[in-house]
Amino acid sequence: MPTLQHDQLERIAREILSAAGVPEDEAQLVGEALVRANLAGCDSHGVLRLPNYLRQIDAGAIVPGAQIEIERETPTTVVLSGNWGFGQVIGARATEMVIAKTQANALGAVAGRRSNHVGALADYVEAIAQAGLIGLMFVNGHGGAHNTVPWGGADARLCTNPMAAGFPTDADPIVLDISTAAVAEGKVRTYRISGEQVPDHWIVDSDGRPTNDPEVLYRKPQGNLLPLGGNVGYKGFGLGMMVDLLAGGLSGAGTSGPHPERGGNAFTIMALDPAVFVGEEHFRADAAALVAWVKSSRLAPGFGEITVPGELERRERQRRLREGIPLPAETWAEIAEAAERLGVRYAKLAPPPVASS
Amino acid sequence: MPTLQHDQLERIAREILSAAGVPEDEAQLVGEALVRANLAGCDSHGVLRLPNYLRQIDAGAIVPGAQIEIERETPTTVVLSGNWGFGQVIGARATEMVIAKTQANALGAVAGRRSNHVGALADYVEAIAQAGLIGLMFVNGHGGAHNTVPWGGADARLCTNPMAAGFPTDADPIVLDISTAAVAEGKVRTYRISGEQVPDHWIVDSDGRPTNDPEVLYRKPQGNLLPLGGNVGYKGFGLGMMVDLLAGGLSGAGTSGPHPERGGNAFTIMALDPAVFVGEEHFRADAAALVAWVKSSRLAPGFGEITVPGELERRERQRRLREGIPLPAETWAEIAEAAERLGVRYAKLAPPPVASS
Repeated sequence: MPTLQHDQLERIAREILSAAGVPEDEAQLVGEALVRANLAGCDSHGVLRLPNYLRQIDAGAIVPGAQIEIERETPTTVVLSGNWGFGQVIGARATEMVIAKTQANALGAVAGRRSNHVGALADYVEAIAQAGLIGLMFVNGHGGAHNTVPWGGADARLCTNPMAAGFPTDADPIVLDISTAAVAEGKVRTYRISGEQVPDHWIVDSDGRPTNDPEVLYRKPQGNLLPLGGNVGYKGFGLGMMVDLLAGGLSGAGTSGPHPERGGNAFTIMALDPAVFVGEEHFRADAAALVAWVKSSRLAPGFGEITVPGELERRERQRRLREGIPLPAETWAEIAEAAERLGVRYAKLAPPPVASS
Repeated sequence: MPTLQHDQLERIAREILSAAGVPEDEAQLVGEALVRANLAGCDSHGVLRLPNYLRQIDAGAIVPGAQIEIERETPTTVVLSGNWGFGQVIGARATEMVIAKTQANALGAVAGRRSNHVGALADYVEAIAQAGLIGLMFVNGHGGAHNTVPWGGADARLCTNPMAAGFPTDADPIVLDISTAAVAEGKVRTYRISGEQVPDHWIVDSDGRPTNDPEVLYRKPQGNLLPLGGNVGYKGFGLGMMVDLLAGGLSGAGTSGPHPERGGNAFTIMALDPAVFVGEEHFRADAAALVAWVKSSRLAPGFGEITVPGELERRERQRRLREGIPLPAETWAEIAEAAERLGVRYAKLAPPPVASS
């Protein structure tokens, strides 16, 4: 598999986006965000997306350089429209706003609509935690992109509706980033590629019958994801509705429904300042103590370690910073093709990718 | 099973609490909260608790008439100590505060510590939704009351750490109230009483081995609950940590750990004013549209209906308001015994309970 150093890959992504007409600052921000996902091992949100972004720019679905419009503002809140710019750009700007509001008023919330794919939610809540605050984020499919059934239902009614939370500690932040569906679609795709059956309670066929066959998601009539929770999936369904109401409802994008404006992301990011509640040092120490406490448990049979949210991703990041980012040959080929087409001389930007097993 | 009308049962609960030295206003509030849980079908949080509350008063664990102390306050936030009063009283007061803060500043949060059992979280977020706001609530065991293993662990490290969310709509509010463990302990108890095995992914034995035998939770060495999520239980574990950090961390009670001050509840209640984001009518209509949309799905095999969070509880409430609240004979006997002991002439308060099948 070709393996690239993260800075090479960032530069390639940036140059390709620039050549496609994306302003420098946006190209840099989006390139960094994609590679950050690759570094964390979240390849489904990484540079794999680049060729699709280029097609979306061509189609007018992503508007490079779009002005972010503040539609309503109070000392604690903002509602904004991203005017269909890059989700990473809109999400980063919203995160800055929520941090500023929260530093001034202990609490803050920014709801955004007309955003393209914001990428990994972990990025935003981690940035908030790095600022010493608690971050919460909720994202829906801008009312569309339905691929998850309600509890007891046979038809897709919600998006995977992810949520995330970031907390500062004495050491590394705690960063939770989960879909409220049993799993994200990309996870089912992985099983499909390797020809394996998926575990129980993940997917249903087009009539809502439980199945372990990943192919049902990729043929017509199409199957769908189940909500999180297995035999208590009404809980995941409830969480999915909560996310939809917070993200789609508060932003004005709309909750999931039959007539979404279009697919994309709507979000609400909230933050709380622990300094105002119990003091920042107190909170950080308490959070670190919780991590130590859960790790002090004996292991259950079949498990090698207890890890806290965000820990495995951080470890993978350290490894890939050292060893480089492995890219499937097809992904690299697509990126190289795009570079060629746009006149980006990627061969001058990066040494030929190292072949590895 | 003895069946009582809700107003009879409220009066009995109130009179018993008063006779035990609880101030009138608190006796009324706690009695109403217990019966409200019974009405919703949530009997584990109903008058069943009364004899235990009396023992806790005797032991000094519940302090009737305790002063609620505001430890820190800003225009958007409060941190309070309940000084070990009734949880229902502290939670109700905190809810009033969060509504007032949010009406003034679009967002509000109240974190509380030194509270006894707050009862059903649904009550608080529903009250917030009735005020036209969005309510979120997070509760831990005041750092103690561990009965849930971390993902991959064999020892109890978290409490069931419930969370709740309430949303106003054009019609009934949407009210989610879930434990971040697979199920609450009371649900396992129900299986134990009926002699049934529990479903997969709910509990483990004292060495962390999955089991379907509810008895493991009630013998030594004791088993524990699994986090929500089944084969993706790392998600429920992450949600449980999130709840612990928001409830225990922000209130000063402490996150779950080896040396809790004592068992009880710590909580954070947050609210957002949809009027400030998109207008109250707009939000209510969107929320109602989401309900209609999820219900428009075809049913999956084996299901008779798609219900949204809070709907089944509301329906049960309507039924029990009409038909009365059935109480197990032992529960009624315990309450009658307490009434006798405290000199409450319950026979004068209520007609002898109707015997029913």
